[in-house]
Amino acid sequence: MSATHEDVVRAAHRIDGRVRRTPLAGSATLDAFLGHRVRFKCECLQKVGAFKARGALNALLARAERGEPVGSVVAFSSGNHAQAVAWAARLLGVRATIVMPANVSEVKRIATAAYGAEVVLAPDRVAAEAEAARRAARGATLIPPFDDDDVLAGQGTACLEALQDGAVPDAIFVPCGGGGLLSGTYLAARGTALVYGAEPVAANDAARSYRDGHIFRFESAPVTVADGVQTLSLSERTFAHVRRTAGIYEIPEDDIAYWTQWLTHLLKLTVEPTAALGMAAAHRWLSARPAPSTALVILSGGNLSAATRARVWDRERLGEPPRPVESGHLGGR
Amino acid sequence: MSATHEDVVRAAHRIDGRVRRTPLAGSATLDAFLGHRVRFKCECLQKVGAFKARGALNALLARAERGEPVGSVVAFSSGNHAQAVAWAARLLGVRATIVMPANVSEVKRIATAAYGAEVVLAPDRVAAEAEAARRAARGATLIPPFDDDDVLAGQGTACLEALQDGAVPDAIFVPCGGGGLLSGTYLAARGTALVYGAEPVAANDAARSYRDGHIFRFESAPVTVADGVQTLSLSERTFAHVRRTAGIYEIPEDDIAYWTQWLTHLLKLTVEPTAALGMAAAHRWLSARPAPSTALVILSGGNLSAATRARVWDRERLGEPPRPVESGHLGGR
Repeated sequence: MSATHEDVVRAAHRIDGRVRRTPLAGSATLDAFLGHRVRFKCECLQKVGAFKARGALNALLARAERGEPVGSVVAFSSGNHAQAVAWAARLLGVRATIVMPANVSEVKRIATAAYGAEVVLAPDRVAAEAEAARRAARGATLIPPFDDDDVLAGQGTACLEALQDGAVPDAIFVPCGGGGLLSGTYLAARGTALVYGAEPVAANDAARSYRDGHIFRFESAPVTVADGVQTLSLSERTFAHVRRTAGIYEIPEDDIAYWTQWLTHLLKLTVEPTAALGMAAAHRWLSARPAPSTALVILSGGNLSAATRARVWDRERLGEPPRPVESGHLGGR
Repeated sequence: MSATHEDVVRAAHRIDGRVRRTPLAGSATLDAFLGHRVRFKCECLQKVGAFKARGALNALLARAERGEPVGSVVAFSSGNHAQAVAWAARLLGVRATIVMPANVSEVKRIATAAYGAEVVLAPDRVAAEAEAARRAARGATLIPPFDDDDVLAGQGTACLEALQDGAVPDAIFVPCGGGGLLSGTYLAARGTALVYGAEPVAANDAARSYRDGHIFRFESAPVTVADGVQTLSLSERTFAHVRRTAGIYEIPEDDIAYWTQWLTHLLKLTVEPTAALGMAAAHRWLSARPAPSTALVILSGGNLSAATRARVWDRERLGEPPRPVESGHLGGR
C-alpha cells in the first residue's frame, strides 16, 4: 500500500525536534516585480543544508519503530542524501557507510566523513549502487535516496510545516529528481493546492514520463547545473504519485542560473541551482495567472561546490530584474 | 559631545519595527572545529542586505525628531550606504538623491534606483563627495556614511540587539571601514565585552591609526576584495571611539576569501567578504584563548557583485576545515 497524507503527518511527529523547523521567507521586492506573492520554505537552512535530512531521519526512526534491527546503515549517493544519512545515523548512534562514486568532489567526501560516516569509493555510480546492495545483503540497512515510503513521507514534512506555519498557496513548486520530494509534497498538500514539479530541460525524464504515461529512463546521467536532479528516472513508487500532480515544468539551464543568482541576491540565502528550479517554475505559472496569486516554493538546499558556483555566476545576471514571462506553459508540454 | 551608550539605546527604540530584528545564528560544526563558541548577528538579512539600514534610518528619524527640516536627502556612496539612504528616505516619504562614482556596478545603480532614489553619476569618488556637498549646501539633508553621531549610534543597534537576545560574548568582532559600525558597537557593548575591529592588511588605515595614535589616511582607495572597507581613513569622530577599543586585527586577502567561503557553506547565508573580516579576527583571537570562549561576530552584509563572487570563489577552499591558528596576534601589531 502506498504512502498517504497520514504517513507525512506521522513522519512530522517522528522527526519533530531533531530537524530544524526552517523559516518561511519572502521578498517584498520580488513580489513587487511579479505582481504576485511567493513564499519560500528555506530547507537550505535545514540540518546538512537540505531537505534530505528529513527523509533519512524518518526512514531510520520508522524502521526502528517497526522493530527492524538497525545495526548499521548504508547508502549510495554523491549528493545531499549522503550527508543526510550520515547525519541521521550519527544522531541515533548507528554506524553508517556511504558508497560514493570516485569522482565525487573532495568537499562532499569530507563533509560526509565529518558526520562520522565511513566513506567507500566505487569506480562509478552503478558500481556504488551495487556495492551498497552488497552491503545491504550482508545485513546493513539500506536507505534509498527516494524509492522508499518512509523517505518520501519524510521529505513531505517540509511542505506540511509550511502549510501549518501559515503559507496559504494556490500552487506549490518543488524540484524533481527521483521524485521523492515531489511525491511527499503531493501527499502533504492533500489537494489544498496545485503541486508542480520542476526539472531541467536537459534532465526532463519526469516530464516525459508524465506526458507519456510510463517511466522514461536516461541511459546515462543527464548534464545540468542542477546536480540534485541528475537521477536517471523516477521509480514506480514515486511515479505513482508524480503522475497525479498538476504537471512538471521544464527549465532551461540559463533560467536555473538566473534564478539561483536572483534568489541568492534577494533572500541572502545560499541557494543551490536545484532549489532555483521551483522558483523558475513558479515564475512561469504566476505569469499566466490573471489575478494576484500565491506560490509556495520549497528551496530544497544550499550545498554548492566552487565549480557549480562558477557555472552559476559565469556572468552578472542581476542587471535584468524579473518580470512576467510571456508564456506560462510547462516547457515541453 | 560625542555619542554615548544611551544614544544607541535611543536609536534602537527609534528604528524598532522598521528594521529587521535579525537572527542570531551559530554553527555546531564550526564550534566543534574551533573548540569555542561563535555567535553571528545576521545583518546580511537586514533590510537592503546590510547593517547600513540602521544608521541611515536613525539619522533621518533623529533629524526629524530634533525639528530639522528634512525636505530631501542626499548621500554619496557606491556601496550599501547608498541603498540604505534610498530605502530609509522612501520609507519616510522623502526624496533622495544618491551621488555615485561613474564606475559603480550596474547592479548597485539599479538596486539604488529600485528604492526610488535619483541616482546621479560623478566622474569619481572625490567628485561624488563634492557633488553631494553642493546639494547639501542648497538645502538637502546630507547623510554621511559614518562621520555622524546618529549614523554610528544606529549602527550600534545591531550589537545591542544581539546582547539583548542572549548572546553573552567574551569579545565582539566587526569590520572597520570608516569606523561607524565599530564605534557604535563599542558604545553598545559598554565594557561588557572586548570589542575588536577587523580590516584587510591591504586597507589597514585604522590599525595604523590605532597603533600610532593619530589618523592615518590613504592617498587613494586601497585594493581589497572586502569592498565595504575601502574608505581612505577614519574621521576624528570615529577615531575617538576606535582608539578605545581592544584593537584592530589585520586580515590577509586569502583569509577573507577563506572565511567568506566557509561562512557561506556553514551558515547557508550570503556573506560578503567584508562580513568575513570579523570572523577571521575572531578566529585569531579564539586561537589564543586558553579556555573555551564565546565570540560575537557581526555579519555586516550580504551584497556581492558577480566579480567579487568570482574573486572569492577562485578556487575551492572548503577542503581545508578551520582549525586554531598558531599565533593569535593582531596581524601587524
